[in-house]
Amino acid sequence: MRANLRAADALRDIRITRHYTRHAEGSVLVEFGDTKVICTASVEENVPGFLKGKGQGWVTAEYGMLPRSTGSRMRREAASGKQSGRTQEIQRLIGRSLRAVVDLPRLGERQILIDCDVIQADGGTRTASITGAFVALHDAVGTLLASGRLAESPIRDFVAAVSVGMVKGVPLLDLDYVEDSGCETDMNVVMTGAGRFIEVQGTAEGAPFSRAELDGLLGLAEKGIRELIGHQQAALGG
Amino acid sequence: MRANLRAADALRDIRITRHYTRHAEGSVLVEFGDTKVICTASVEENVPGFLKGKGQGWVTAEYGMLPRSTGSRMRREAASGKQSGRTQEIQRLIGRSLRAVVDLPRLGERQILIDCDVIQADGGTRTASITGAFVALHDAVGTLLASGRLAESPIRDFVAAVSVGMVKGVPLLDLDYVEDSGCETDMNVVMTGAGRFIEVQGTAEGAPFSRAELDGLLGLAEKGIRELIGHQQAALGG
Amino acid sequence: MRANLRAADALRDIRITRHYTRHAEGSVLVEFGDTKVICTASVEENVPGFLKGKGQGWVTAEYGMLPRSTGSRMRREAASGKQSGRTQEIQRLIGRSLRAVVDLPRLGERQILIDCDVIQADGGTRTASITGAFVALHDAVGTLLASGRLAESPIRDFVAAVSVGMVKGVPLLDLDYVEDSGCETDMNVVMTGAGRFIEVQGTAEGAPFSRAELDGLLGLAEKGIRELIGHQQAALGG
Amino acid sequence: MRANLRAADALRDIRITRHYTRHAEGSVLVEFGDTKVICTASVEENVPGFLKGKGQGWVTAEYGMLPRSTGSRMRREAASGKQSGRTQEIQRLIGRSLRAVVDLPRLGERQILIDCDVIQADGGTRTASITGAFVALHDAVGTLLASGRLAESPIRDFVAAVSVGMVKGVPLLDLDYVEDSGCETDMNVVMTGAGRFIEVQGTAEGAPFSRAELDGLLGLAEKGIRELIGHQQAALGG
Amino acid sequence: MRANLRAADALRDIRITRHYTRHAEGSVLVEFGDTKVICTASVEENVPGFLKGKGQGWVTAEYGMLPRSTGSRMRREAASGKQSGRTQEIQRLIGRSLRAVVDLPRLGERQILIDCDVIQADGGTRTASITGAFVALHDAVGTLLASGRLAESPIRDFVAAVSVGMVKGVPLLDLDYVEDSGCETDMNVVMTGAGRFIEVQGTAEGAPFSRAELDGLLGLAEKGIRELIGHQQAALGG
Amino acid sequence: MRANLRAADALRDIRITRHYTRHAEGSVLVEFGDTKVICTASVEENVPGFLKGKGQGWVTAEYGMLPRSTGSRMRREAASGKQSGRTQEIQRLIGRSLRAVVDLPRLGERQILIDCDVIQADGGTRTASITGAFVALHDAVGTLLASGRLAESPIRDFVAAVSVGMVKGVPLLDLDYVEDSGCETDMNVVMTGAGRFIEVQGTAEGAPFSRAELDGLLGLAEKGIRELIGHQQAALGG
Repeated sequence: MRANLRAADALRDIRITRHYTRHAEGSVLVEFGDTKVICTASVEENVPGFLKGKGQGWVTAEYGMLPRSTGSRMRREAASGKQSGRTQEIQRLIGRSLRAVVDLPRLGERQILIDCDVIQADGGTRTASITGAFVALHDAVGTLLASGRLAESPIRDFVAAVSVGMVKGVPLLDLDYVEDSGCETDMNVVMTGAGRFIEVQGTAEGAPFSRAELDGLLGLAEKGIRELIGHQQAALGG
Repeated sequence: MRANLRAADALRDIRITRHYTRHAEGSVLVEFGDTKVICTASVEENVPGFLKGKGQGWVTAEYGMLPRSTGSRMRREAASGKQSGRTQEIQRLIGRSLRAVVDLPRLGERQILIDCDVIQADGGTRTASITGAFVALHDAVGTLLASGRLAESPIRDFVAAVSVGMVKGVPLLDLDYVEDSGCETDMNVVMTGAGRFIEVQGTAEGAPFSRAELDGLLGLAEKGIRELIGHQQAALGG
Repeated sequence: MRANLRAADALRDIRITRHYTRHAEGSVLVEFGDTKVICTASVEENVPGFLKGKGQGWVTAEYGMLPRSTGSRMRREAASGKQSGRTQEIQRLIGRSLRAVVDLPRLGERQILIDCDVIQADGGTRTASITGAFVALHDAVGTLLASGRLAESPIRDFVAAVSVGMVKGVPLLDLDYVEDSGCETDMNVVMTGAGRFIEVQGTAEGAPFSRAELDGLLGLAEKGIRELIGHQQAALGG
Repeated sequence: MRANLRAADALRDIRITRHYTRHAEGSVLVEFGDTKVICTASVEENVPGFLKGKGQGWVTAEYGMLPRSTGSRMRREAASGKQSGRTQEIQRLIGRSLRAVVDLPRLGERQILIDCDVIQADGGTRTASITGAFVALHDAVGTLLASGRLAESPIRDFVAAVSVGMVKGVPLLDLDYVEDSGCETDMNVVMTGAGRFIEVQGTAEGAPFSRAELDGLLGLAEKGIRELIGHQQAALGG
Repeated sequence: MRANLRAADALRDIRITRHYTRHAEGSVLVEFGDTKVICTASVEENVPGFLKGKGQGWVTAEYGMLPRSTGSRMRREAASGKQSGRTQEIQRLIGRSLRAVVDLPRLGERQILIDCDVIQADGGTRTASITGAFVALHDAVGTLLASGRLAESPIRDFVAAVSVGMVKGVPLLDLDYVEDSGCETDMNVVMTGAGRFIEVQGTAEGAPFSRAELDGLLGLAEKGIRELIGHQQAALGG
Repeated sequence: MRANLRAADALRDIRITRHYTRHAEGSVLVEFGDTKVICTASVEENVPGFLKGKGQGWVTAEYGMLPRSTGSRMRREAASGKQSGRTQEIQRLIGRSLRAVVDLPRLGERQILIDCDVIQADGGTRTASITGAFVALHDAVGTLLASGRLAESPIRDFVAAVSVGMVKGVPLLDLDYVEDSGCETDMNVVMTGAGRFIEVQGTAEGAPFSRAELDGLLGLAEKGIRELIGHQQAALGG
């Protein structure tokens, strides 16, 4: 039985709070149940060196966890002097996922820097980050449109992400920390509003998984992401 | 004229929210107006190497700012690979301030690690951090008392902190970012419930200051800290 | 048309040379066409701190590229003082893939460290690394069996990996560098001898991909991995 | 009783030796009793990035201790790969203190870099550094005036620093290492020739201190700094 | 008795394989017995900052060892985040040795970067590196000549290197690992085709050595280097 | 003509001042003309990990330069976060040179750490460091003998070092900075009181050097080192 009597194919309570902090062009608190992430989007009127003069923009992301966002305190990465491999994997994934729905030439020679900072973790921090970051990105683009710096939005589609996994032989949607720790297979899926995949990352934590299990998990993820995009639309359009 | 018609000797709106996140033994959101800091206190049943076998505990602190807690995005310290001198100064100050009101032998051979993470900055982040961290520390000690690991509290007094400064010749209490940027003298004061000083750090940002100006600022700080301790008492006793 | 008139579903020339260098317990040169990786396996009679006293072993991996393994010289990571996010992603993937086929308690309290060093790169370095590292691991386990330190092998199955991708709408097996640079979707698949998945990592480099495309790529990967495992068996059993 | 029968309000023997080493534009050995610091001032015809084109100069400082300047050998910061928080606090303090008496626009677009290296430590290394660095700075400005690169000095006043502290209830001037280790309150004061404060940093090492104690320490510091400035004047004018 | 009945004044089997990998302008596998080093030479059309606009080129080198090139696995320098003092000494030596036979102004404003990566170590890795790197450098210059970017070669002479040492009172040429570990004196000598010295580095590992012993070792090294240059000439086809 | 009309085979003015600073077990200021180095020797009652339980001691060295010991200010290595290759070469050389005259088992399980810090540089800082460090080491051993921790000295012989070089075809002893910058060949020689070599490091900075030139330089170095050992004996025995 899942916590709060949740069904196997149900998301946790999803909340997306825009304008959460005051300085950033986009600032969102995203909550997937007890997982809470502050996602900000900052506009900078320059591009990284490798894009100078190429006539296009860039979207990149950084990710962090507050030391006590977790059950036992993690070492602060700023104090240890480097970001872990896990942190780097996640921030590369967030950046790729967002770039996949942005028309970079249409963004112009500027970049949008996404910061995803986990203030409370209960599984699914990377998928919550992607889902919230899209809304922050959308708001940052909104400020560019409002100020006339952009004439039309470079955002081509929605994007959201969710985790799915096999737990004791049962496929579950949107794993919390306890489920994630005990699952045999963990899969993170990033998908667009049009129902096409941006990333599929499945990992056998215990026993390897069959093609049929993979197919089942993908179906579950598609359902969850459609719902998450509904939450994004409600937050943005409502 | 100060923002919101605030009087020269008035604090900003102070809010102290306990149990802000779920995992830490103490977790507080402290707000000094638009400055918002998450302060957590984590109990660990060990002590740093230099204290092993000495029969006493330790309290230490780390400090960070989310990259977009500020008006323009700051570089993430975890990404640049080191903490700035400013960060290190502040976290050393927070640690010293809290240790000054804790009876370390009575704490036993364990440590309490304080994390102060600024999610929105508008001046006074270090004084808000100390003020909120005390409440988080108090809650962490509360869990030790409740679980029987401590028989009596090692906390000897309250501690809070405030900034004061000379702005265009006028002494002001609890500077916001705009005031702080324009002040001639900036002073951070850390004081106990008994009205005794733990730290006094006055710096001439512009013209050096006279003894009379110093005396005026100290009086203003004493008033502010008495009020902040009232807020702490209300939060803890409420 | 692919280089060397290769069919869309054909691997490049695969060569696995055991005992390539002299010191390591397992040492393999693996070649996927022009991609050449030295994979060594080193046995150490200790385990990482987090496993001490847990009655199990560990398998971990590190990955590197010689600076001029590539078309233009890359900066040496030892000189720049840190490993890139890409390097860390790859070495974590290699380690996870191998651990998935090893019975870690049966390995005993010792670890096997895999080093994959690319001496010439032409796409698919991570999949060649996994495929070659399995053979090096097998040889290292062989030395443990031969010396009586292990009574039976902890290796439960074969494991190999291959990349697949959509290039101009055509699904291709085992991409070389030119194909990889131009593909719309890139997928790395890690699979066991029993035909079950350990990792599936699909990324849209250009346009997002559909479920049908994903299914087609998975089928192609399954075919390629079966052949790669045949090469491993030939190398080991020959 | 203090070492050498020193009175509570007496400085240690102060010696300021100009032209101590040969290459720097200003080079001073400053001695506060057994504390010995080499202070050099180097002129560079450029400014840090954040000041380019702003029509003003800069003064900054670095601080270090030889590993065996202390009773037991300290780890060399160049070997450990980073400067401690204490080092960074001190060098920021030295820089701020000197900038407070320099008219930066009048200095022109150049910077003066101060290096304070402690060759023997017996308490008060930061206050000796500030006191000696001022003389080195003065000599460096002298070379600019002598060569015609500056028409008039940008130095507006003298600056010196001293420590004061409560030891067993008695306020003492210019603490040596033994006194500093045993004091209840430690205060560093930086003051100008005009008797105005640049920095006041008081810290309760043991019991918090009262306003009356603070007032007493400030008076003692003022007396000591007046004498130190006398020593600077003698060294420069003599 | 030496391994393989080698005479005291004999080199190990020397093999120099050109065009070993495909991307670099020069790529050589050099073998001194069981010591195997990949030496590549990369041409870059720029120079380091300190040479910009000086009308000359540069040759520099980097050196590394695969973690399991040695009998017990060494820590990967990219993972530990810094190059050891030994690595830095060796790469500085390789660079100096090659620059000594190159007419840098005639090379033009470009640099040739040498990478020496040891894939199997059995003593003498630095001398093998220099000897192989010269051939890689020669091939890189060949590509510049062939493409017309250089009209005449800037290489003025051959250069090779060998180790010699006193082992149990006997002077030996080209020490392998076992001999090197047990020698009283170890000397590395770098010499040109004209028989002049570029570097002589003799170190007493055990007892200090006499002038007569030094003279004997130098004679042995001269003999060995003449033979190594013969191998280079044969490899280059001369 | 050399500075101060110095003869080609003459040392600069040599001064060795013992007990230069107060805390270290050995503390020496060594001056070779305008090159001034503080050498301290610190005794620690432990050994590095690789020697634990081996029944022998260790001698090691670190080297640094004050940022403005040189004509133009060098970057502080503690600030840049790493020691240069040159620094590491020099400190390894100092350590090897001293260990060559110490009977490490007789030293017992303790180590002596040498710190050589250049306060003013004018060429020959490494040779001055070795020469001064020997005297500091001798004094540190003296404290061990005086306190009864050692019954007899583990020092077997004197050791000193000097540079020699070919400048415009003339062999010169003990090069100053100007001579060192312009020399064709630079050689550093480390020798014992018994006239045997510990290190010979000759480098062609310009044209390669002949065997006859090498022989001439070695003779000059032997003369200089005999004189330097005379200075050490006078300093210690006086």
